[in-house]
Amino acid sequence: MKGEAIEQGETSRAPMARGINRGTSILDLILRLLALIGTLGSAIAMGTTNETLPFFTQFIQFKAEYNDLPTFTFFVVANSVVCVYLVLSIPLSIVHIIKTRARYSRLILIFFDAAMLALLTAGASAAAAIVYLAHKGNVRANWFAICQQFNSFCERISGSLIGSFAAIIMMILLIFLSAFALARH
Amino acid sequence: MKGEAIEQGETSRAPMARGINRGTSILDLILRLLALIGTLGSAIAMGTTNETLPFFTQFIQFKAEYNDLPTFTFFVVANSVVCVYLVLSIPLSIVHIIKTRARYSRLILIFFDAAMLALLTAGASAAAAIVYLAHKGNVRANWFAICQQFNSFCERISGSLIGSFAAIIMMILLIFLSAFALARH
Repeated sequence: MKGEAIEQGETSRAPMARGINRGTSILDLILRLLALIGTLGSAIAMGTTNETLPFFTQFIQFKAEYNDLPTFTFFVVANSVVCVYLVLSIPLSIVHIIKTRARYSRLILIFFDAAMLALLTAGASAAAAIVYLAHKGNVRANWFAICQQFNSFCERISGSLIGSFAAIIMMILLIFLSAFALARH
Repeated sequence: MKGEAIEQGETSRAPMARGINRGTSILDLILRLLALIGTLGSAIAMGTTNETLPFFTQFIQFKAEYNDLPTFTFFVVANSVVCVYLVLSIPLSIVHIIKTRARYSRLILIFFDAAMLALLTAGASAAAAIVYLAHKGNVRANWFAICQQFNSFCERISGSLIGSFAAIIMMILLIFLSAFALARH
């Protein structure tokens, strides 16, 4: 009798609730794919950046590569790790579209999403700080703007930040979506 | 009859569930207070950093302040904003200890926690990138390590990162805790 009563109460509002939960899960999958493209693009754009200047002295050829600066290496690593994580999380996201009432798998996703959000933000903003320095330099610390010489290098590294920052926004929305799905149970 | 049945089903497992939820909410409050102390300490430590070297030429007195570098100003602002947010979120956290079944207020907290996590991580890691540069310099970009001259300045700015990074870990745990409380409904 008890079981029946609860089941009745559930079925009366089930189709709509399931529809919203399924919509949430599909949106989750789309956001995950977009974040994946963003981080992959950022990692590739930064990882393939190098510029050789068309003049050189006897001893030095002027050349700039992303891994001249450890921060950019960290940026590539962070984006790659988050990208791999997103690929691995896609099957779980698809499971959530089918099994809309899953709870603990969503909880695990939220935790790792938050950790990956922190990693991605760390990489992107550390790189942004160095890119800013490359553009503007700093008079007080006597650090010169290197973008005057390495122009296309600078454009490339600045551009590669965009995908990463877009992915950060996606990740925040992903956390919210998973939490929203949990709150609706 | 239906209402009664559901109520019966709830009361049988209610005391334990409520106890766990209350424990989660208390842990949430403690983590929030710790993160608050971390960000406040970081903001104050960085904001009060300056060093005047004991020698000067006719024209220049050698002096280093945190706001010589825009990244450190951003670090102070980010930490202050997160600190104010944490203060404002404490009343809500206390409400959750009393009303353990609150759902949508937890959802709002998760969203803002995630956004603040991103802001705090951005500030902390941008500052970390510059601190790293101040310590090590970069030969390829011709940026010199300034820590040889400004020794105590560098120690202070390095130290002020600790509170921020500790707060980042607290924020990740806070998001997980709120999601855990939602999953248990």
